[in-house]
Amino acid sequence: MSLSKSVREGSRIALSRVLSQVENSTPIGLHALDELFPFTGKAHKIGITGPPGSGKSTLVNALAKQLRQLEGEPRVAIIAVDPTSPFSGGAILGDRVRMLDLQGDPGIFIRSMASRGALGGLSSQTEAFSQVFDAAGYDFILIETVGAGQSEVEIVNLAHTTIVVDVPGLGDDIQSIKAGILEIADILVVNKADQPGADQSLRYLKSMIEMGYRPLASSAGKHKLAESLSKEEIPESDYPQNLWQPPVLKTIARESIGIEELVIEILKHQEFLKNTRRWQLKEAWTLREFVRKRIEGILVQEFFEQLPEGVLDDLMEKIITRKMSPTAAVDNLLTYNQITKKSHYSE
Amino acid sequence: MSLSKSVREGSRIALSRVLSQVENSTPIGLHALDELFPFTGKAHKIGITGPPGSGKSTLVNALAKQLRQLEGEPRVAIIAVDPTSPFSGGAILGDRVRMLDLQGDPGIFIRSMASRGALGGLSSQTEAFSQVFDAAGYDFILIETVGAGQSEVEIVNLAHTTIVVDVPGLGDDIQSIKAGILEIADILVVNKADQPGADQSLRYLKSMIEMGYRPLASSAGKHKLAESLSKEEIPESDYPQNLWQPPVLKTIARESIGIEELVIEILKHQEFLKNTRRWQLKEAWTLREFVRKRIEGILVQEFFEQLPEGVLDDLMEKIITRKMSPTAAVDNLLTYNQITKKSHYSE
Repeated sequence: MSLSKSVREGSRIALSRVLSQVENSTPIGLHALDELFPFTGKAHKIGITGPPGSGKSTLVNALAKQLRQLEGEPRVAIIAVDPTSPFSGGAILGDRVRMLDLQGDPGIFIRSMASRGALGGLSSQTEAFSQVFDAAGYDFILIETVGAGQSEVEIVNLAHTTIVVDVPGLGDDIQSIKAGILEIADILVVNKADQPGADQSLRYLKSMIEMGYRPLASSAGKHKLAESLSKEEIPESDYPQNLWQPPVLKTIARESIGIEELVIEILKHQEFLKNTRRWQLKEAWTLREFVRKRIEGILVQEFFEQLPEGVLDDLMEKIITRKMSPTAAVDNLLTYNQITKKSHYSE
Repeated sequence: MSLSKSVREGSRIALSRVLSQVENSTPIGLHALDELFPFTGKAHKIGITGPPGSGKSTLVNALAKQLRQLEGEPRVAIIAVDPTSPFSGGAILGDRVRMLDLQGDPGIFIRSMASRGALGGLSSQTEAFSQVFDAAGYDFILIETVGAGQSEVEIVNLAHTTIVVDVPGLGDDIQSIKAGILEIADILVVNKADQPGADQSLRYLKSMIEMGYRPLASSAGKHKLAESLSKEEIPESDYPQNLWQPPVLKTIARESIGIEELVIEILKHQEFLKNTRRWQLKEAWTLREFVRKRIEGILVQEFFEQLPEGVLDDLMEKIITRKMSPTAAVDNLLTYNQITKKSHYSE
């Protein structure tokens, strides 16, 4: 039986193997991804982001358990993206704790992903993983990432629903930072709500939403969606039901408090997306970005592979000694561009 | 007089204009960058990163002022990179406060930079800005960025000296995150050292350094340096003087406490880099990455520009309806690859 067929029939070993092959971009991985793609498009992708210390991992755990309680016992995949450490390989300490906590449940699959390769590759890789889980029959895919940089925004942006997790009592100069992250939130959560300052954080977030971050937040990635799919844009003013007001919730993930309410909001958002065609728009945009990133990767890789040996070194020597500018070197290098028009995984 | 000549002769207006042109990658900007390049290679680039709320901006301000006190009144440029908000355009609130604080000094130039374009472009853009400041005669270039994702690591990694700023009393699940950032630190700072828990943070960082993060930390980016310049690698074991033990300092930036000590450590690190040839290695690696990123940008841009109209849309339609896989679409698109071998800014 083919690997992708085993994945679709529920083999965890096959799933694990395909994910590794996809991660390393092997021909086997690309082939499996290809075979699995027709069976994608059903899973609800949920991005969870927030500053370090906000208890995201605990929240994701509690959320996974709660989702499993829903009718039909939906299956849940967790992708833990760790863009923090390109050097150590990104093994997150909390990961093992989490695995211990959830390992008894065959309806949950956890996979962490470190950023080893190029940056552009990280969101593309996350989407590839999502496609595998989707085809394997996972109903919810939770994508967890540390949220402070643009890479995280990019990753989260491929999700249907974005949850931004906040925590009481962070410094005041953090407020201006949060504004940027707020814009991508579909649901806001103040976790560790038993800590001092929780109500203050709640009020702050609510006021931010009301003050005008709402319109942008109402459709994460709308800018880009609008750009690539301008003909399909839905004018919000014409259809009030197209507005999504991001709810702000309090949770204590460690004690599973507030998680039921969070699941209710997630399901409401899912319904909203499907009723307003945003689900399809989001899907279309994500797939377009996926194709774009893959092409970028191939163009760059093949360009450097086909450069005659020594050319780059010689030019670098001239640049370092200031005999040539980087721009002139770039022009020079581009004359070697002879990317062949062959299939990139035909051999 | 040419724009780049005005920049070199100290015109702030010309400098400001060149930076904008470089930011927008206009022919004028590329041309100026080209003309300025022979005059680069002198500035000491210092990256400052740390979690939101650590008081980085205040520290950078205090540091800039302190550096100005050195013999010869060196000139200081500040590049504030904000990768947080791709949506709002990234105007940081604190920026205006800072400008007000430093605006009286003609030896300081502040420029903030938001991440509008591609991610790969951000570190390349920061390097381009650095080159302009370098040629304009700025002795120190302080590159400030929010530190939690890989994009920040990349940006900071082009600096000669990387300062990681910590703050007392962040949650405990943040510890594992910090390990990744620690590896790139040349100097560690516990800011807001008058807050409870400062000594605990100091001890924690010192123990982390001693426990084994030191070898990696001793030369930020060594991995990559080693990869691209393997012939030039300096075996640390042979030359004990090649070891850099990252110092851990306490500061209260708001009151300029500990900043003098920080400057001393920066100068020590500068001396260390120059004595061990790491300065040149770092320089060579940064320039190589700069060339690489530029080529990536051009390859991708030109590829999509030369695609016949409608081709991408048609393929996307097939993907969305699951009639074709993304991989097959990518293969198909690559057959259109006809990037012309012309100079990329000759017209």
